[in-house]
Amino acid sequence: MAEDMEIICVGNELLIGKTLNTNAQWIAKQATALGLIVKRVTVVADDVQEIADAVREALGRKPQFMVTTGGLGSTFDDKTLEGVAEALNRKVAVNAEALNMIRRKYEAYAREKGAAPVELTRARVKMAKLPEKAEAIPNPVGTAPGVRVDLEETILIALPGVPSEMKAIFKETVVSLVKQVSGGSGFYEESVYVEGVMESSLAPLIDRVMRDNVGVYVKSHPKGRESRPRIEVHLSIVAGDGGVAEGKLRRAVVQLSGLVGEVGGKIVFG
Amino acid sequence: MAEDMEIICVGNELLIGKTLNTNAQWIAKQATALGLIVKRVTVVADDVQEIADAVREALGRKPQFMVTTGGLGSTFDDKTLEGVAEALNRKVAVNAEALNMIRRKYEAYAREKGAAPVELTRARVKMAKLPEKAEAIPNPVGTAPGVRVDLEETILIALPGVPSEMKAIFKETVVSLVKQVSGGSGFYEESVYVEGVMESSLAPLIDRVMRDNVGVYVKSHPKGRESRPRIEVHLSIVAGDGGVAEGKLRRAVVQLSGLVGEVGGKIVFG
Repeated sequence: MAEDMEIICVGNELLIGKTLNTNAQWIAKQATALGLIVKRVTVVADDVQEIADAVREALGRKPQFMVTTGGLGSTFDDKTLEGVAEALNRKVAVNAEALNMIRRKYEAYAREKGAAPVELTRARVKMAKLPEKAEAIPNPVGTAPGVRVDLEETILIALPGVPSEMKAIFKETVVSLVKQVSGGSGFYEESVYVEGVMESSLAPLIDRVMRDNVGVYVKSHPKGRESRPRIEVHLSIVAGDGGVAEGKLRRAVVQLSGLVGEVGGKIVFG
Repeated sequence: MAEDMEIICVGNELLIGKTLNTNAQWIAKQATALGLIVKRVTVVADDVQEIADAVREALGRKPQFMVTTGGLGSTFDDKTLEGVAEALNRKVAVNAEALNMIRRKYEAYAREKGAAPVELTRARVKMAKLPEKAEAIPNPVGTAPGVRVDLEETILIALPGVPSEMKAIFKETVVSLVKQVSGGSGFYEESVYVEGVMESSLAPLIDRVMRDNVGVYVKSHPKGRESRPRIEVHLSIVAGDGGVAEGKLRRAVVQLSGLVGEVGGKIVFG
């Protein structure tokens, strides 16, 4: 059985449409490839109460993993850890390990410029204020550490919003964690294109392919118009064994190809 | 007081990271420009229960507008309207107006090809199955109509997931609806770039600019690294009067520029 993940993205810039949420897509793709099922993505504002509500609701659905992005930095509107703490009924407190990571970063920045080490101002110490009993995760690219909180049913990971930092922490730490916990299943997929059949005519054929190929999920994505159709058909399966998965996908494509031919259409690859 | 909107995007392709959620960004941008506050974006799977849960939760937060995207088409996994109906404790039933819209579309497609009109199969009739007391919205580009449901506190609009169709219905119908309901306030914004100041040093300056310029929201977006900083500072305000809004933004930029200069940095436009 595949494990579930929920993603919570924090940031006003996402809610005013200033920033495209590439973080959610990237994490969803990585998590899916690791065999997880992403059940929900939630985007909320830089507001402690909004964040706390979203985290509390998501924890109530008991995903094995929850990843948050954004809101870990030094400015007043970086509020994710306060929100997480509130959802968990914990306090935030300066975490010694996190503070050490941050101090070493600023020492390195100063060395890089040949300048005197900068002061650990309130804004910088803020990045070390973690929910109690949380763990700091090294940030190989930026300053603010990631954060991990192990709860009864869920491992919660808070990542920065800057994509390069988010990705670096995910690759360095989250991937191996997920591999430890999940059963090593993988996600396999294939896309073919159907021409000459309207989506509404294709619908019952897809139903039949899904009924006959248990475990294979088939979804159509119209690329042309209903009147001049070119439809991407995306087939996918989560399985422990790559060979078995690919055999099942192949059989499903062959059946679909036959059914599409019967109604005067054809299948094109790529 | 600005009105709230929530956006719910339905589609497995978003949760496996196959598709980037450009729909949410586009709608968020449009809604923000119309003076609405987008409070939350939720992405869920093609699953009646998941959709119903998300819709019910969002309605509980009483936004003035709720927009869903995706899941209106003819295939088995287009389940948004079933999910909405379940959240509202209503049945779905064939809506005469929607069925007429769909019939006319297929007649037009047939004429375009010089073929005999196609049959209204079960898959095609499916697109006309709306929650009871819902209203069909014309789709100027594709086949599946949009759907509007007026509830006590919320106007719910269901739009297709195909971006061209979603945008066409939004522009043709939703924009004027929002303008009727909202007070005609607008969103005004400006970005400047700060060089030579670390984000953690900029944080207290931004705090001060926000305190001194009531209504102006300021957020920093690091573009370089903490050690070699180039930071976008995005200033925004929702206001009824464009002239007043721009005056306030200008004053805030001038103050920020002075404060940044005092700590040895500079502000660059564009």
